[in-house]
Amino acid sequence: MQTTEQIQTLMETKSVAIVGLPRGMKTGKLFLIAIQDMGFKGPIYAVNPFTEEIDGLKSYPSVEALPEPVDMAIILVPNSQAKEAVVQCAEKGVKGAVLFTAGYKETGEAEGAALEEEMACIAKKAGMRLIGPNGMGLYSPEAGISFFPGLPAKLGPIALLSHSGSMANILCRMGPEKGLYFRFAVSLGNECDLTAGDFLEYCAQDSKTGIVAAYLEGIRKGGVFLKNLKKASETKPVILWKMGLNPEGASAAASHTGSMAGDERIWNAVVSQARAVSVNGFEEWVDAMMGFSLFSRGMGRRAAIISGPGGLAVSAAQACGRAGLSLAELSPESKAKLAEFVPQTGTSLKNPVDIGMNSSLDMSLYIRAAQIMAEDPNVDIVMAAPIGLDLETNHALTQALIDVYKAADKPFVMIKIPGFEAECAQEFCQAGIPFFDSAERAAATCGMVYNWQKQRGLHKQTP
Amino acid sequence: MQTTEQIQTLMETKSVAIVGLPRGMKTGKLFLIAIQDMGFKGPIYAVNPFTEEIDGLKSYPSVEALPEPVDMAIILVPNSQAKEAVVQCAEKGVKGAVLFTAGYKETGEAEGAALEEEMACIAKKAGMRLIGPNGMGLYSPEAGISFFPGLPAKLGPIALLSHSGSMANILCRMGPEKGLYFRFAVSLGNECDLTAGDFLEYCAQDSKTGIVAAYLEGIRKGGVFLKNLKKASETKPVILWKMGLNPEGASAAASHTGSMAGDERIWNAVVSQARAVSVNGFEEWVDAMMGFSLFSRGMGRRAAIISGPGGLAVSAAQACGRAGLSLAELSPESKAKLAEFVPQTGTSLKNPVDIGMNSSLDMSLYIRAAQIMAEDPNVDIVMAAPIGLDLETNHALTQALIDVYKAADKPFVMIKIPGFEAECAQEFCQAGIPFFDSAERAAATCGMVYNWQKQRGLHKQTP
Repeated sequence: MQTTEQIQTLMETKSVAIVGLPRGMKTGKLFLIAIQDMGFKGPIYAVNPFTEEIDGLKSYPSVEALPEPVDMAIILVPNSQAKEAVVQCAEKGVKGAVLFTAGYKETGEAEGAALEEEMACIAKKAGMRLIGPNGMGLYSPEAGISFFPGLPAKLGPIALLSHSGSMANILCRMGPEKGLYFRFAVSLGNECDLTAGDFLEYCAQDSKTGIVAAYLEGIRKGGVFLKNLKKASETKPVILWKMGLNPEGASAAASHTGSMAGDERIWNAVVSQARAVSVNGFEEWVDAMMGFSLFSRGMGRRAAIISGPGGLAVSAAQACGRAGLSLAELSPESKAKLAEFVPQTGTSLKNPVDIGMNSSLDMSLYIRAAQIMAEDPNVDIVMAAPIGLDLETNHALTQALIDVYKAADKPFVMIKIPGFEAECAQEFCQAGIPFFDSAERAAATCGMVYNWQKQRGLHKQTP
Repeated sequence: MQTTEQIQTLMETKSVAIVGLPRGMKTGKLFLIAIQDMGFKGPIYAVNPFTEEIDGLKSYPSVEALPEPVDMAIILVPNSQAKEAVVQCAEKGVKGAVLFTAGYKETGEAEGAALEEEMACIAKKAGMRLIGPNGMGLYSPEAGISFFPGLPAKLGPIALLSHSGSMANILCRMGPEKGLYFRFAVSLGNECDLTAGDFLEYCAQDSKTGIVAAYLEGIRKGGVFLKNLKKASETKPVILWKMGLNPEGASAAASHTGSMAGDERIWNAVVSQARAVSVNGFEEWVDAMMGFSLFSRGMGRRAAIISGPGGLAVSAAQACGRAGLSLAELSPESKAKLAEFVPQTGTSLKNPVDIGMNSSLDMSLYIRAAQIMAEDPNVDIVMAAPIGLDLETNHALTQALIDVYKAADKPFVMIKIPGFEAECAQEFCQAGIPFFDSAERAAATCGMVYNWQKQRGLHKQTP
């Protein structure tokens, strides 16, 4: 069986065993709660030889004693017992195992590395695949499985590969706030068997994966990784946040997942050869996911900026220039329409359109201006920085701008003004309008998506 | 009288006239509400010939009719009447006038530029100073005056010079959230008289100014600006966010405050000659203010990172490397103490110290680890990324970490984990611990402050 088919089986997991499920409220219990939270439809088997029942589930003394060979075993037993659990899973015919158990290659000891190698061999012989060790495994909304409680049950386009379980957890958890939903997320751990490269191959051919995002510490099997990165990146944005690019990061990564130091120049060459997207930092990573998931194809580069605060409009214009976007030249019709109601002083009718302080008092000015810009054929992207004097006004403003966006059918971007309520920001993201924390990040992300599309001939050409 | 003395008079304004105060709820009314909000102790005179009373204030028909020559006149009249108002203020002996009235140089018309020039001449002859036109004037907590309602009455160390009134307003308003308080803020407008350079001269000699932050579109009187920038920057951090550095930003700035295009290379040379701090974007600007206001002198470069999520610890380590910080080598005593209670697997006792998932369930592990690192003589900066499972835990964690910080007397930095409540973030900032939205921004800001201090020999030398 091909690796992609084996991963597909895990994505569609229909039965789960939790090996070493604790009785009390310990970390391991979170795996059970996570799967129950997701409303998993198939059987969940507890394996714990010291009890007959855990939280209403019958507990089996061993994997061998299970009534069926499950699709996925989640192994939580102490380090000294993990190999035996893998052996039992292999013998039972389990399809895949997640090894949460840690204490292997990441300890820096030769013994740990040898032991995980051995477990990989045992699994390989039996045709079973391993995720981990020292990883949290899989979150797949389609199958109803998860590695942490409270993650959204809704399916989305993002495939997330991560060498940090907590980073994957944090991102999936905050996703809905930013309009981000996931095809799946995998916490890879030390990758004694399945690697980031294997999952990239899966993503390349998976029709439900629209975007790939990865937090990577080290790269196992560099050749496979590069080949599959290229393959995935041909048709899908692959957003890579890489650790280990300097001595400080490399040293930290080594004790986290036992990965080797990389070299920033080599990494940059890999990214550029594969035409992938490289980001530096959590915020840029999330911004890129927002841009690639919420903007559709056919991005143009002519931005129109509309703002109450004049200074914010100016800084957004500068940020557009830095990001390779241009300022749209509004049509004479648009300028004439704006002149009908925008006050003459303390404002500007040239793009950026600065409505002035009046917009705080009369939001309809703002909305009419946004509509004129959205309808202007010279405008490819509308960038808006709105704020009213209270939550009620901001809610109304949000709804009105969403309506303008839906009628216009071109990319909209919102820029935060401090004080604008997070709940309104979330409404924008849910409606398909990315909401960015600053003009600089909004413009940089638009430029990133535009360039990606342009490289592949998918952008909107400026007449 | 020297310019600095004249500015000092405005900072200590004891009487105000609002010329053209509207009767109804128009934009101009905000200036009155702003000053009343601040609890201004002196007399506020309304000038409006069309009524005898506004909101309980006696309204005077003209500036001439006022019972005294006020320290500050705020001129809100329409463009066509502004010159006459300036003439009257000059004749009356008003010390300084804020010209909120717009429609001058920023329109791009020669007439507007000539008119503001003329008003500047009238003022100069009378020994009166002008702020503006097309600006919002002064916020001075000490005097109890402000240009927008709802700004904090508490005095702080930051002097803010801005070519955007709304940017100044946004920043001062959000300040307390980030632990930022202001000595004063000035919205400069078109600078027909007082310029950013004049205020820099004032800041250089003002003992209450600890930090200068500026949002600048164009530079009037470049020679004066550079001279005073150098003077201020010798002893105080001057954080500059400059617009007009590319064609998009320059074009937007021209219609906002009528400023001329700059050249990025020239600007960089100015900044570097003056050893000032240059930032690019609102977030970096605010981060820098947090760093310079909350960190005291004697910053070292050896950071110790403590985190629940391992991935965040790794990315923080990489960010430290990029920012020119080093990872502290924990003392053997610290390592031994950590080993007593940090679980052996899925964690790391090497810096970064990764407490693992257990910290979500038992916060005391986290706090003990932070204390050990704070007491370690090899550690100059403690960087922590905390999160509990609920608000109550996070409040307790916040208080406990603030206690550790106060006992240790060395810089602490908090790194946000998405989901951590904004109210706890604010508690950290209020206690003197800057709270950053990401590890990258935390490390970059520490590096920025360290380098500034090092340039002046004020940093902590590593043994």
